Amino acid sequence: MVAPLVNDSFLRACLREPTDHTPIWLMRQAGRYLPEYNATRARAGSFMALATNPDFATEVTLQPLERYALDAAILFSDILTVPDAMGLGLSFAQGEGPRFADPVRDEAAVARLAVPDLDRLRYVFDAVASIRQALAGRVPLIGFAGSPWTLACYMVEGGSSDDYRLVKTMLYARPDLMHRVLAVNADAVALYLNAQIDAGAQAVMVFDSWGGVLADGAFQAFSLAYTQRVLARLKREHEGRRVPAIVFTRGGGQWLEQIAASGADVVGLDWTTGIGAARERVGERVALQGNLDPSVLFAPAAAIEAETKKVLDEFGAHPGHVFNLGHGISQYTPPDAVRVLVETVHDHSRRRRKA
Amino acid sequence: MVAPLVNDSFLRACLREPTDHTPIWLMRQAGRYLPEYNATRARAGSFMALATNPDFATEVTLQPLERYALDAAILFSDILTVPDAMGLGLSFAQGEGPRFADPVRDEAAVARLAVPDLDRLRYVFDAVASIRQALAGRVPLIGFAGSPWTLACYMVEGGSSDDYRLVKTMLYARPDLMHRVLAVNADAVALYLNAQIDAGAQAVMVFDSWGGVLADGAFQAFSLAYTQRVLARLKREHEGRRVPAIVFTRGGGQWLEQIAASGADVVGLDWTTGIGAARERVGERVALQGNLDPSVLFAPAAAIEAETKKVLDEFGAHPGHVFNLGHGISQYTPPDAVRVLVETVHDHSRRRRKA
Repeated sequence: MVAPLVNDSFLRACLREPTDHTPIWLMRQAGRYLPEYNATRARAGSFMALATNPDFATEVTLQPLERYALDAAILFSDILTVPDAMGLGLSFAQGEGPRFADPVRDEAAVARLAVPDLDRLRYVFDAVASIRQALAGRVPLIGFAGSPWTLACYMVEGGSSDDYRLVKTMLYARPDLMHRVLAVNADAVALYLNAQIDAGAQAVMVFDSWGGVLADGAFQAFSLAYTQRVLARLKREHEGRRVPAIVFTRGGGQWLEQIAASGADVVGLDWTTGIGAARERVGERVALQGNLDPSVLFAPAAAIEAETKKVLDEFGAHPGHVFNLGHGISQYTPPDAVRVLVETVHDHSRRRRKA
Repeated sequence: MVAPLVNDSFLRACLREPTDHTPIWLMRQAGRYLPEYNATRARAGSFMALATNPDFATEVTLQPLERYALDAAILFSDILTVPDAMGLGLSFAQGEGPRFADPVRDEAAVARLAVPDLDRLRYVFDAVASIRQALAGRVPLIGFAGSPWTLACYMVEGGSSDDYRLVKTMLYARPDLMHRVLAVNADAVALYLNAQIDAGAQAVMVFDSWGGVLADGAFQAFSLAYTQRVLARLKREHEGRRVPAIVFTRGGGQWLEQIAASGADVVGLDWTTGIGAARERVGERVALQGNLDPSVLFAPAAAIEAETKKVLDEFGAHPGHVFNLGHGISQYTPPDAVRVLVETVHDHSRRRRKA
């Protein structure tokens, strides 16, 4: 038996239903800017030990909710769990970002690629169930996955990249191989997200972190088409409630209308897109999530308040706004700045609704 | 006495005058993908030794023109010559990118900042005169500078950055300091470009490489406003001819209309913006430059031809297209791929005009 939801403002805003305040959560809200996160990570020994242990994952997922009045929790995990389960050998070297021991760079490697046995991702679904239990209905839990294209970037490059040379070389030189990688990824991501929903995720988010590095035309064919394929296969109802799907394409502002037509309930925006103009462009088709520049949180409280109100005022008095940063919170963020942000979003949006 | 211009297709396209083919040049066309460039650089000993010596700069500027039928030359130099002349102590560590010994991070450093004595940049103007002489009218010579904002990024960060944390902290926490840095930069860049024009540059380009990292709103106030200030002060006529000004904001596609209204003759596009839609958005106000993804050059000839024709066909049968990549050419580009690109642009655009 799951506890009934006390604060459903996030889910309501995702579905463009009225709420008494604008809900807020932060990408990477359980992260290195929090001393308690760093303490748990030190106990776990490594990022992977943290992410693969449901108890640790539960602990760090709840940490930011203890400090701030956030309106949603997000599963603590990594987008690369799926390619890791495909057998590519994920590791995180200290301060170096992710690395795959066996990147997918040739025809043979592409041929070997297959949707992984979901049992290899059991630890993720166990974490979802455990977090959901620990939340006890306080706020909804968001599950997530990387987009097929974003996963492909890491799988082909073998890690982070400046120029995406290897994955784009495959795209332009061997589009047939690229499409096969993306098809496998889309199938895997859809199964993975549905299993998260079964385990208790009340919303899901697809992170297309690297969609914005693609050329116009290539984005639609190699990223958005496969995100759509994922969305088309998602369970959209669970426990008698709609499970909203959020799509966030970093650098995707120019393709907003197309992303809004992908089947997503919510489109995430980075800070380069004005959220007022974005709302006009998408109309009533989707809710919007975003989009404060995370760097604003390095400024004094008065500047954080002013910039936060600007985003709220720009969005205007419509339902369908989930406040967030335009990208993950920086590890250098002073924790007190987050309190100013969350309180400003709640207070200012409540005041706006009463005015 | 300067030789009359044999191939003025680039200048004509910048001013939206008809040409018998679409002119092409490539950002970073004199660069590490050319073995002859690497040989000259080895002789010079370092990047700075190459860039500060007018003879070496002339030699490498002309190298790509010997190989390919490019329609313009661009001064071989670096955007950081201006802050270097301000006394910030530029160096390039092997494989590490630029570094300033004295970054501008506090009120005192901002107060010390001043427009540099142009004599400290004499080597650049000497290079312009020398290249112009060596070109003997084959194609026009483009001068360039970094935008005030892009220079500020390096000056505050002290080098390249992932997150622009320090410069954005100054922007949000101390906008007064940021505006002073940008005002000094704008004055310096205007003087610098005018001196390049006096020395013989026939067009100038402002590289706003990091404009696209700014939030909507901040871009207009902290990048575009200062690029406009530069453009307003430029000499637009020299030797009886209009000197076109090109503005390239990487990641600026969402602000295209505003950039097109900045006073630029030409707006550079990266590959994320469809050039056909871009032309509709700007109408007859400016010419467009771009915008093939440089990664296309890693593909076989047939794919390079197809993607190149796609850009030309999307732009359509209007004057005012300068073909370019959407960003600098990669050091890993096979030199033969550039030949395919240049020939395709010339052949296909000539064929289109006859059709």
